[in-house]
Amino acid sequence: MHFASDNSGPASPEILAALGAANSGYAMGYGADDEMAQITARIRDIFEAPEAAVYLVATGTAANVLALSTLTQPWQTIFCTGPAHINMDECNAPEFYAGGAKLTLVTKEDKMTPASLRAAIEGEETRGVHGPQRGPVSITQVTEFGTVYSQEELRALCDVAKSYGLPVHLDGARFANALVSLGCTPAEMTWKAGVDAVSFGGTKNGCMGVEAVIFFDPRKAQEFEYRRKRGAHLFSKHRYLSAQMLAYLTDDLWLRNARTANTKAARLAEGLRAAGADFSHDPQANMIFAALPRATHQKLFDAGAVYHLWDGDLDGPADETVTARFVCDWSIGDDQIEGFLNLL
Amino acid sequence: MHFASDNSGPASPEILAALGAANSGYAMGYGADDEMAQITARIRDIFEAPEAAVYLVATGTAANVLALSTLTQPWQTIFCTGPAHINMDECNAPEFYAGGAKLTLVTKEDKMTPASLRAAIEGEETRGVHGPQRGPVSITQVTEFGTVYSQEELRALCDVAKSYGLPVHLDGARFANALVSLGCTPAEMTWKAGVDAVSFGGTKNGCMGVEAVIFFDPRKAQEFEYRRKRGAHLFSKHRYLSAQMLAYLTDDLWLRNARTANTKAARLAEGLRAAGADFSHDPQANMIFAALPRATHQKLFDAGAVYHLWDGDLDGPADETVTARFVCDWSIGDDQIEGFLNLL
Amino acid sequence: MHFASDNSGPASPEILAALGAANSGYAMGYGADDEMAQITARIRDIFEAPEAAVYLVATGTAANVLALSTLTQPWQTIFCTGPAHINMDECNAPEFYAGGAKLTLVTKEDKMTPASLRAAIEGEETRGVHGPQRGPVSITQVTEFGTVYSQEELRALCDVAKSYGLPVHLDGARFANALVSLGCTPAEMTWKAGVDAVSFGGTKNGCMGVEAVIFFDPRKAQEFEYRRKRGAHLFSKHRYLSAQMLAYLTDDLWLRNARTANTKAARLAEGLRAAGADFSHDPQANMIFAALPRATHQKLFDAGAVYHLWDGDLDGPADETVTARFVCDWSIGDDQIEGFLNLL
Amino acid sequence: MHFASDNSGPASPEILAALGAANSGYAMGYGADDEMAQITARIRDIFEAPEAAVYLVATGTAANVLALSTLTQPWQTIFCTGPAHINMDECNAPEFYAGGAKLTLVTKEDKMTPASLRAAIEGEETRGVHGPQRGPVSITQVTEFGTVYSQEELRALCDVAKSYGLPVHLDGARFANALVSLGCTPAEMTWKAGVDAVSFGGTKNGCMGVEAVIFFDPRKAQEFEYRRKRGAHLFSKHRYLSAQMLAYLTDDLWLRNARTANTKAARLAEGLRAAGADFSHDPQANMIFAALPRATHQKLFDAGAVYHLWDGDLDGPADETVTARFVCDWSIGDDQIEGFLNLL
Repeated sequence: MHFASDNSGPASPEILAALGAANSGYAMGYGADDEMAQITARIRDIFEAPEAAVYLVATGTAANVLALSTLTQPWQTIFCTGPAHINMDECNAPEFYAGGAKLTLVTKEDKMTPASLRAAIEGEETRGVHGPQRGPVSITQVTEFGTVYSQEELRALCDVAKSYGLPVHLDGARFANALVSLGCTPAEMTWKAGVDAVSFGGTKNGCMGVEAVIFFDPRKAQEFEYRRKRGAHLFSKHRYLSAQMLAYLTDDLWLRNARTANTKAARLAEGLRAAGADFSHDPQANMIFAALPRATHQKLFDAGAVYHLWDGDLDGPADETVTARFVCDWSIGDDQIEGFLNLL
Repeated sequence: MHFASDNSGPASPEILAALGAANSGYAMGYGADDEMAQITARIRDIFEAPEAAVYLVATGTAANVLALSTLTQPWQTIFCTGPAHINMDECNAPEFYAGGAKLTLVTKEDKMTPASLRAAIEGEETRGVHGPQRGPVSITQVTEFGTVYSQEELRALCDVAKSYGLPVHLDGARFANALVSLGCTPAEMTWKAGVDAVSFGGTKNGCMGVEAVIFFDPRKAQEFEYRRKRGAHLFSKHRYLSAQMLAYLTDDLWLRNARTANTKAARLAEGLRAAGADFSHDPQANMIFAALPRATHQKLFDAGAVYHLWDGDLDGPADETVTARFVCDWSIGDDQIEGFLNLL
Repeated sequence: MHFASDNSGPASPEILAALGAANSGYAMGYGADDEMAQITARIRDIFEAPEAAVYLVATGTAANVLALSTLTQPWQTIFCTGPAHINMDECNAPEFYAGGAKLTLVTKEDKMTPASLRAAIEGEETRGVHGPQRGPVSITQVTEFGTVYSQEELRALCDVAKSYGLPVHLDGARFANALVSLGCTPAEMTWKAGVDAVSFGGTKNGCMGVEAVIFFDPRKAQEFEYRRKRGAHLFSKHRYLSAQMLAYLTDDLWLRNARTANTKAARLAEGLRAAGADFSHDPQANMIFAALPRATHQKLFDAGAVYHLWDGDLDGPADETVTARFVCDWSIGDDQIEGFLNLL
Repeated sequence: MHFASDNSGPASPEILAALGAANSGYAMGYGADDEMAQITARIRDIFEAPEAAVYLVATGTAANVLALSTLTQPWQTIFCTGPAHINMDECNAPEFYAGGAKLTLVTKEDKMTPASLRAAIEGEETRGVHGPQRGPVSITQVTEFGTVYSQEELRALCDVAKSYGLPVHLDGARFANALVSLGCTPAEMTWKAGVDAVSFGGTKNGCMGVEAVIFFDPRKAQEFEYRRKRGAHLFSKHRYLSAQMLAYLTDDLWLRNARTANTKAARLAEGLRAAGADFSHDPQANMIFAALPRATHQKLFDAGAVYHLWDGDLDGPADETVTARFVCDWSIGDDQIEGFLNLL
């Protein structure tokens, strides 16, 4: 009954098998392995983007901050939501990598709207050189509250960014979960909507530790390689990143894992709803924010359930509700979900 | 009728005379001039702080960011208001100097309150190493909206900061204006309230370009000298900074200038109020935020008045009000104020 | 016949097996996995350092720059050799992570001497705040030219550093190779000699991608965790770093692999010497720098040998010698070495 | 008898008079003052560069590091001499402002040669993304040892830089002293030779504290304004920088002061030579490096002479020579020089 994070689960057997298969003989290091060329070709194909530049790193934060710093000048500000991972969970890595750039928090909600984004952009660069200059817009898809921007919402946000000449970054730590939720193509969820660079997550969706960074305009990627090396994120034995990513893209493993996780989460949400839980956000991918009474949380924890309380703790009236975050990864068993729901 | 900024006025004749007097013969550079020792002694005396470390720089932004970066680790966040100069008007200099630290905006208002500060501090460092760590609190006195924190307000904010072990910086670009407004001692407005480091402004109050940075605990200043040099802010012909600051501190010039500016602003505010202007904030020092109808602004501009519109422009209904910022510097003539008020 | 780099070879089967064993069920992320606690205990034991702080990262550059930046202030300079990896092969990552610190190149040779180190230290900090301040000394063991500092040499260098109050970092990307070459204990090669922090390499010696950073004084490590996270080097699925390192330290795999690599290199060196090759440096671990005539290189390359020419290329007189670098990893087969030597 | 530095002397009376004249009424801040427009026009005229972008800052280090960081990427290395001010005397400010870029020391001598520069450039970027990338060349004119690059030398160095596509920065802290020494035009000493950006010094040559930064290609200056503000080097009361620079450029004050200083230094050098002093470098501007016996130094110091010993101190045999640096500023009196020489 582990719903703490999609970071807590194991890697898919296909990933492990690929590591084993890669672990033979000598291979060129630092991204010059044969598999990397296949990955680039595969991603260009999947994204219908024959010019795209593709790079691998091992952590989601590295993908985000290396992509963003390539799009940002140190005197600019990055537009994102308050709950965004780059704001809340990266210990100032974006500011560090972007040479002291700022983050402008567009909203406290899960999603920016065209109106809130426009207002935030208009609020900056009102004082010539004195204030921060307008920089890229970073959109998180799946959002940190488990919701998914629709294609129309993405397009509208990108349109606002473009109207100011600002580039758009998509934090796709849960890219596949969003994609299968929307049922659109990768191109539609990215460059066709106006996205310039993507953090394409693997780690949360069944890999051990690998993320791709994709630039649709390869000129914007020119400096990425220097930034990756200088950030100490270029792997010498790069073949082990490649092996993971290639397996992830093979036979739709990435889509299958995401579909599984989303389906499990839908079943869990259904059960929570049936048990009377309130949802602060509509669960559209593999994350659920649901409010339950403290007494219920206590019972679930006592029975061994693992998940995070979000807006409170167990100290307080037993019948008062506290919102909790439940995340389903690809590996969660039906028995665990049913066991959990039975407890409810 | 120039009310655009206290940066726009001339320097006091005493400052110019001091430059002339200093401009003779040879002097040791880089802060080793004789006058600097006198300044340190004088500031220690004025602040009743015999251990204080004192340094000079030429711009207010330099004072702020060098002081703050000495108190901040790159993985921390600095607590300040949204309108704070360090957030709005320093083009990411605080982030740059602090190695990529973040700013957490406590409030959109002119003043932090103990409650809003506490809430902001509680909102950070909730995720172990993942989020930014809590860093210094930076208080602007006079605030960017012309109000002045009372001694009680300052103490209460510092108490909150201290309860979390956080150092406190005071952005005193208009230190003297605040001091004469409060009628308290420099010690009471700083270390007795709990302030650790001060940007002690001279430029806006009758100097050409000089600010002091004061650390009450000299251990905290240990690294300041390296930071100043590395920031390219150590003057070779330092005697010309010293001459200004020494003249500023002599015969209470700093207090006299501030009193004059505040008095002029009070007269201006009185006239504006009589003319029916609305004040978004109570003018307590030398800055006034007053709303007047567009038609009135137009008439005043046509007659040669110089000041900034704050929350709108002249495009719109003539009878609708727009808030403007009026700043009085030490040199503004009574005739200008009366001429302006007569126009009203 | 692959002698290009110890980065090019595969991982030990034990490492792969450990990944497989770790790949089951849920595990706490970000270093809170059970294996990490075992690793810390094991390294404290191996190094006879019960207080040591231990952290894992995935690349050697990350280990170096995170360790060094913890020991360095931005206004300081790091003392190292010209050929040091941190100077030649990290694309300014040390300067980036240390906030703009400088590197002072003590020598162009493979090894610093107490005299050259002392001269370099004396050459800095001669101008008060104007020049860079003296910072840590970084020693590479095995050196970039395949030689190994003796215990006496290490101690003498550390003694010089300590006499100026400077901390010492050991870049041990090939730590195990050096250790088995010297035949001393890990403690003798580190803290007993005066080393404060170690980059303890795994990747080049049979792991997929894992390095430990060890601080003998845990107070010096206090900020390491923030630096690692902010550098985007904290793994969410940390268990896969832990699994590698724990397997590496189990049943002396780290020592066995190093002994194998060194032995193979010794056999290769013997053969090269017999074939008349000149050695610019005495091969003491698993790297050989040997000069052979261009014609010989051509023949070897034609036969499929893979290695790097170091100080020239194949354009030139056939009988002129060019120095090449040969590296043996743990996995190189005897048949490959003998085949190579037969070609010679 | 003060020969310690051209930073120690007073400002020209014309500079002080200009400050007085500027100190009246209100002026737009932050570089929007009327005088700044005149300065730009004047410098474009003097340099025969109608497109040049011109900015003012208050310190030579600020001019250098803001100019250089505009030309440098953080993963690049700046080519300069070991004695260069940016290497020896700026406490890592270049590295800080350039986001962690490196300095490659071309030579330990006062001057780079085309051969040594080419060798240094060839020594970098030999390892793909692994090492630092080649960045700008920074030339110091007058050199730190009082010599002056000839036009031919400058052109040859710029030609080398251009052949690699690298921009060239000229550290002209003593620009005027070099110019009158060469007797060429400002254009010949800069863009006609191939220089892209100049730190045009005023402080050492009779100003209180002002330097111009000149970009001949205004596109290269695009980001300078953001960098200046973010570095905290944009003056609010900018008119006082402008007043100095405008006076400096009026009636050839800059050239007259430099001619005076050089002439005095020539007289001093003549006297030193007559007294048997050895010169390590040919004094070509206003700095002299001359070796005298310790006993002579002692006698001079006892008589009140002020200057720096360069390669030793007074501890040692009285008849052994120690090299000293003597700098003449514009204000040094003939009586002081003659008095000094009489002592000799």
